[in-house]
Amino acid sequence: MHALTKPLIAAAAALALSAGSAGADNHPDRTQIEQVISNYEQALNASDTDTVMTLYADNGVFMPQHGMPNIGAEAVRAAYDGVFQAITIDIDFAVDEVLQVSPNWAFVRTRSEGFVTINATGEQAASANQELFVFEKRDDDLWKIARYIFSTTNPPRR
Amino acid sequence: MHALTKPLIAAAAALALSAGSAGADNHPDRTQIEQVISNYEQALNASDTDTVMTLYADNGVFMPQHGMPNIGAEAVRAAYDGVFQAITIDIDFAVDEVLQVSPNWAFVRTRSEGFVTINATGEQAASANQELFVFEKRDDDLWKIARYIFSTTNPPRR
Repeated sequence: MHALTKPLIAAAAALALSAGSAGADNHPDRTQIEQVISNYEQALNASDTDTVMTLYADNGVFMPQHGMPNIGAEAVRAAYDGVFQAITIDIDFAVDEVLQVSPNWAFVRTRSEGFVTINATGEQAASANQELFVFEKRDDDLWKIARYIFSTTNPPRR
Repeated sequence: MHALTKPLIAAAAALALSAGSAGADNHPDRTQIEQVISNYEQALNASDTDTVMTLYADNGVFMPQHGMPNIGAEAVRAAYDGVFQAITIDIDFAVDEVLQVSPNWAFVRTRSEGFVTINATGEQAASANQELFVFEKRDDDLWKIARYIFSTTNPPRR
């Protein structure tokens, strides 16, 4: 790399970070955060509550559509157990935006599409959601899901 | 104020900010952020898109249930115009959590309850939602809605 290029790149990276959403694609921990989303996708598709729990902060909040907010590990675990008892999920996440707003906090906008199967009946339905994650980098230097909410992007049932 | 007290208060405030969620009720701009929520509640209940737009960042994202994410002022405005054409809202917000994670960024969890009236039919329905707001303090020193998503906490329609 040319001797002059390196400081220019560093300056550009600093500028991108300070510019907030204008530099959404240049946030330093983007790769680690996207890996957590990928791990979460796999855990959902495997109905694997134990793995989901490793991705959440211990004081995390899960806000499922059609349910009240679940606050803290015990409530979050029970909520995912309930989801996986009711349905089997087969979806893919697409990351629309990663915005790291401080060394320890970030939020992520995603959308997900695929199918869910109702375990009791075997009935399959198309699933399309949008999600907003708040991530916190914890003392163990791992990014964890601190807050998470989703809602369907499909039209209302008639 | 006693000469020794002032630095102690500053140190305590810094500690509360650095403590993250543990200091959720001590974040310095909580009052200003809650005022925006209150203004937003009033604007929703008045079907007032113009006032809603003053509360959003110009690159804000509105993620309504049953719709795709609306990105930027023009799309956000069109989405609220659509909502207010379809329904008249009469709800109250309760703030569950304000979490200011940096001088310029904060997250807020709320729930809202009340009624919506379908304008075309006059039919009224109970409304209960949970919301996650991302707030950004902009160059004009005002806190603005940067990202906003909600989902119903009511059970699914049968």
